[in-house]
Amino acid sequence: MQNVVVRNIPRPAAGLADRLAALGVSTVHEALGRSGLLKPYMRPIWGGAAIAGPAVTVLSQPGDNWMIHVAVEQCRAGDVLVVACTADNTDGMFGELLATSLKARGVLGLVIDAGCRDVRALEAMGFPAWSKAVSAKGTVKATLGSVNLPVVCAGAAVNPGDVVVADDDGVVVVPLAQVEAACKAGEARRENEESKRQRLAAGELGLDMYGMRPALAAAGLVYVDSLRGGTGKTRR
Amino acid sequence: MQNVVVRNIPRPAAGLADRLAALGVSTVHEALGRSGLLKPYMRPIWGGAAIAGPAVTVLSQPGDNWMIHVAVEQCRAGDVLVVACTADNTDGMFGELLATSLKARGVLGLVIDAGCRDVRALEAMGFPAWSKAVSAKGTVKATLGSVNLPVVCAGAAVNPGDVVVADDDGVVVVPLAQVEAACKAGEARRENEESKRQRLAAGELGLDMYGMRPALAAAGLVYVDSLRGGTGKTRR
Amino acid sequence: MQNVVVRNIPRPAAGLADRLAALGVSTVHEALGRSGLLKPYMRPIWGGAAIAGPAVTVLSQPGDNWMIHVAVEQCRAGDVLVVACTADNTDGMFGELLATSLKARGVLGLVIDAGCRDVRALEAMGFPAWSKAVSAKGTVKATLGSVNLPVVCAGAAVNPGDVVVADDDGVVVVPLAQVEAACKAGEARRENEESKRQRLAAGELGLDMYGMRPALAAAGLVYVDSLRGGTGKTRR
Amino acid sequence: MQNVVVRNIPRPAAGLADRLAALGVSTVHEALGRSGLLKPYMRPIWGGAAIAGPAVTVLSQPGDNWMIHVAVEQCRAGDVLVVACTADNTDGMFGELLATSLKARGVLGLVIDAGCRDVRALEAMGFPAWSKAVSAKGTVKATLGSVNLPVVCAGAAVNPGDVVVADDDGVVVVPLAQVEAACKAGEARRENEESKRQRLAAGELGLDMYGMRPALAAAGLVYVDSLRGGTGKTRR
Amino acid sequence: MQNVVVRNIPRPAAGLADRLAALGVSTVHEALGRSGLLKPYMRPIWGGAAIAGPAVTVLSQPGDNWMIHVAVEQCRAGDVLVVACTADNTDGMFGELLATSLKARGVLGLVIDAGCRDVRALEAMGFPAWSKAVSAKGTVKATLGSVNLPVVCAGAAVNPGDVVVADDDGVVVVPLAQVEAACKAGEARRENEESKRQRLAAGELGLDMYGMRPALAAAGLVYVDSLRGGTGKTRR
Amino acid sequence: MQNVVVRNIPRPAAGLADRLAALGVSTVHEALGRSGLLKPYMRPIWGGAAIAGPAVTVLSQPGDNWMIHVAVEQCRAGDVLVVACTADNTDGMFGELLATSLKARGVLGLVIDAGCRDVRALEAMGFPAWSKAVSAKGTVKATLGSVNLPVVCAGAAVNPGDVVVADDDGVVVVPLAQVEAACKAGEARRENEESKRQRLAAGELGLDMYGMRPALAAAGLVYVDSLRGGTGKTRR
Repeated sequence: MQNVVVRNIPRPAAGLADRLAALGVSTVHEALGRSGLLKPYMRPIWGGAAIAGPAVTVLSQPGDNWMIHVAVEQCRAGDVLVVACTADNTDGMFGELLATSLKARGVLGLVIDAGCRDVRALEAMGFPAWSKAVSAKGTVKATLGSVNLPVVCAGAAVNPGDVVVADDDGVVVVPLAQVEAACKAGEARRENEESKRQRLAAGELGLDMYGMRPALAAAGLVYVDSLRGGTGKTRR
Repeated sequence: MQNVVVRNIPRPAAGLADRLAALGVSTVHEALGRSGLLKPYMRPIWGGAAIAGPAVTVLSQPGDNWMIHVAVEQCRAGDVLVVACTADNTDGMFGELLATSLKARGVLGLVIDAGCRDVRALEAMGFPAWSKAVSAKGTVKATLGSVNLPVVCAGAAVNPGDVVVADDDGVVVVPLAQVEAACKAGEARRENEESKRQRLAAGELGLDMYGMRPALAAAGLVYVDSLRGGTGKTRR
Repeated sequence: MQNVVVRNIPRPAAGLADRLAALGVSTVHEALGRSGLLKPYMRPIWGGAAIAGPAVTVLSQPGDNWMIHVAVEQCRAGDVLVVACTADNTDGMFGELLATSLKARGVLGLVIDAGCRDVRALEAMGFPAWSKAVSAKGTVKATLGSVNLPVVCAGAAVNPGDVVVADDDGVVVVPLAQVEAACKAGEARRENEESKRQRLAAGELGLDMYGMRPALAAAGLVYVDSLRGGTGKTRR
Repeated sequence: MQNVVVRNIPRPAAGLADRLAALGVSTVHEALGRSGLLKPYMRPIWGGAAIAGPAVTVLSQPGDNWMIHVAVEQCRAGDVLVVACTADNTDGMFGELLATSLKARGVLGLVIDAGCRDVRALEAMGFPAWSKAVSAKGTVKATLGSVNLPVVCAGAAVNPGDVVVADDDGVVVVPLAQVEAACKAGEARRENEESKRQRLAAGELGLDMYGMRPALAAAGLVYVDSLRGGTGKTRR
Repeated sequence: MQNVVVRNIPRPAAGLADRLAALGVSTVHEALGRSGLLKPYMRPIWGGAAIAGPAVTVLSQPGDNWMIHVAVEQCRAGDVLVVACTADNTDGMFGELLATSLKARGVLGLVIDAGCRDVRALEAMGFPAWSKAVSAKGTVKATLGSVNLPVVCAGAAVNPGDVVVADDDGVVVVPLAQVEAACKAGEARRENEESKRQRLAAGELGLDMYGMRPALAAAGLVYVDSLRGGTGKTRR
Repeated sequence: MQNVVVRNIPRPAAGLADRLAALGVSTVHEALGRSGLLKPYMRPIWGGAAIAGPAVTVLSQPGDNWMIHVAVEQCRAGDVLVVACTADNTDGMFGELLATSLKARGVLGLVIDAGCRDVRALEAMGFPAWSKAVSAKGTVKATLGSVNLPVVCAGAAVNPGDVVVADDDGVVVVPLAQVEAACKAGEARRENEESKRQRLAAGELGLDMYGMRPALAAAGLVYVDSLRGGTGKTRR
């Protein structure tokens, strides 16, 4: 582990992150070809927030939040702070004071592969966080890590400047080079889904709308009329 | 695994499922002699819903929701879709479009031993789901499974047509042959509990109301006045 | 395991527990020198409650809530019931009737290293609980345990009369002998944090406010201008 | 839960179970169409054993092994004892004395969705067990369950008399009606695998032996010569 | 957390620990009235060792083994080093060099609620360890903890000088004041079990040997001849 | 996820991987500055093997081993196959036939963030594997993934050609650019440790050998003579 802070990171063009936030995590994840998702244990500490912004990345030692303090200085308005840890840890590395400091800089929220505390205070100040745990466990400030080096956070590779999208469905990371394409693919998908939604709401079956029946039959799916003694075994 | 869809399943007489929903999961579970409960990792993706209805059962491959699309066609108004998986999996097999389709058919909700996504959309449309995880992870449509064969879902055996009851306490399955008896036993229990609640609220002790003291003494329970140097060791 | 009920336990002087509740779990945990925290899997079954009171301790067999019924009689107004279990267990050992009984005695809430049920009823009656799981799984009343002996609950040692503080950040236990000191240390910390919060909200960096830069440099932290080809490697 | 012991259960014809044991868990699981597998947390407490026999099924309360004592009487030579539990539990429900008793009756081994103890003694006496945990935690004998009713054990439905196959790869259950077919299918598979093994050992690629290349190409798989700046993007 | 090292701790009379080691964990746990067991996730890193000795206790910060180095000096021949951690952690806090140092002092083994590394080296030198995980993850030496204060290790309260017994069934702690009684109770139990083993090996049923039938009948256990259509429902 | 196979990957100079294998995982991890370690849930399916070689990387869909078959063709003598999965999964994606095929090509072993089966057969043929689980659960061949793109495996970023080192302590990945430096740093560390081992074996304390006492005192560590009523509180 190199004990390095990188001051300048690339960030996406203005407006792109907001478009990803509006699409939401599930749509963006699909638009990326189903990649970039953080493990589903990453949950919002309070519900309803939806954010997207370039990642300022931190690598911390378990039980030690020193590097988060270091990272604050590297954050700009619109960023999302992403904290990885060198080992599985649930300690409450982040709380109200750090949130106050980040909010003063315009940071949109926190994604941390560890614990978070002061849950009610963070909700009251409108600062969202996605974490592995809620824990009051205090941390030390004793061991260096890194800021703005590539990290693995909750099973996903995150490079500084990659756009992190987070909402009630979880967290997905969009590589910086794919941000614009993800916006377009996601918006196309959203539009396409709207028409599908209307057809499904009107009672059309997905089996028909997606044209699945031939492939199901080809794969060997068998329909029977009833579980026991059923005579009418038919392919459909 | 047989790749079979059973078209006709037995369902309970009208009104019985509603009576079970009104009783709630904990009471129904007790009325069944404490059986039929799904593992407690099955949690509602949004709080406050309470449903009961006959199970349309699905067995899926991990990461593959093809059979859920197949199952939609087999669902009727009042049913509950129950999805089991051949291996532990948290992928988001179910989301807004499938919920739209099920809602159009009058399905009451979803119980899935895997992940669910589009949490806020499902809450907005009033479609409840109980799942192992919330995850945006997309799934494929590549491998067959079954619809309306018996499954094991979250540790409980579920036959098609069994009544599934789900609320904020979890999910319980009532074998079809026991539905009427469970209604009666549950309603008797509820009535009985109401009088107990009043007596306990008035300050009567459960030790007395349930007559537990003799059995506790017979089992050897000892009362002492204090932890250290207590002299007054007495049986009570 | 001794099958003993201790009738008299020490309790803190009036008012101290309320001061700890007002401080909250995270502040009290820090005031204790970062000790006494229960594992973070202990979560409130409904959000927003904050309590503190002396512990009436219970040790139960898995799947058996007999001793909780015994413990009710030993509880007084202002107490918190703390239930440990001889093995990991998620069964719903506690529900609406027990809560009714405890509420009638003025008990503030429940901390249980097992499951809890009747979640919506407990919320409706304003009785808070922190538990390992929500589960409708019913329990038996067959095997003795203890009341008001020292226990280990969710990884923390709890002696009867120790003050348990619980809110949305989790649960912390304050040894009875340290309650007054914890109040003072916690209140001092809270006051100190208020001024820090204002400075951070005004944009001052924690790095400067806490004077961290020299220690970071001494530890070897390196700042670089950019990740690739960066020339400006500087100590700061 | 019915508190019932069923005295007579069906068992497979002589010799079939031994043929399944010789095939091993992985082959039998495939022969069943990939069904019947218990969760992979079920591990042998000592390595190298491989057994198969009809299941005598037990349903126990967590922390209570009374019904195992009851079940011993129902076991015959060649049986496998299968213990399910009404809730997740790791207590050491089974140890040397029970193993001695079962061995005296010719029982082949134990499959328990809970804990096992006296590991070294069981290995010394050659009595194999597959369990969720090794734990010295003692259990009570206080609450009834059932013997020889259908159970769900580690995620799989087990009926009394179904053949349980267990080795170092885990545990699979073969429904009694499918035992003979499973033997035949498994033995055919084994024979078929032997020739495949020889071809693969000789360097033939599975891609060719299984004829996978056309399907991979049809699915859209792309081969490139190198990760960066590669020119030679080719379909193969 | 007090940053204290206690130099002198009480230890049991000579010979007692060896008697507990000879009894083994399961017997000692029963002799203690089924208390004192560490969670079953504590497993030996290599099999076959069986030790018992007074605990030298350590409380460490996650990812930091500084206090283990401090504790070595406080260990004497026959001791067992017991390491607790302020939060769940799997880092490899202990390896070959520390084992070499402890072995030079005659320490019998290690019990650590975290990770251990150099597994093969420790086995080669005959130094046993029980841990939550095997992990090569290196640790820092930055934050104080305590040595020889009471700790909670893997769910059990351990006071310095308490006797820790560990073998392939797990780890149990015997409070110093109960060591002699535990020896006697355990040895009586062992003797008693030997005769039971012989009777069970000869085919006597536990149901008869323990006289369980009347209690089972009184509890309502029902015997039936077969699962379906059985007529012979009989109490036995 | 791009459905791509990269044919040519960089590999380290001859001999380097063997030097890393000889050093072992714990030493290499330290030599890398404590980075690159896979999560400790990755365990050898049989003990005693120690390998190192360049990674051929696979990304698979849960429950689907099609891409492993594709990857075999890309492996050369001395490689290690590294399989990541798009979601947590324990299915037995790898067994005897694939091992036979890899062994025929001279592949050293397997690292898979999923399940493995045919454990005894793999041990018999001397093909080592590190996995998240042992499971007989069969997989399908239906969905594409990638071969030789960068992956995250068990929490660590792995690029094709990075050297993977695996033994009984776990698995560590060495970025290709750091392989030579890691060899040198590791060998220096090993030499240095040998002299330390001798000093510690001779009874010298790590506190003295590492010169830790001043830093401990500066951090505030206090020594007392005994836990209760101790008078001799001294700094040492």
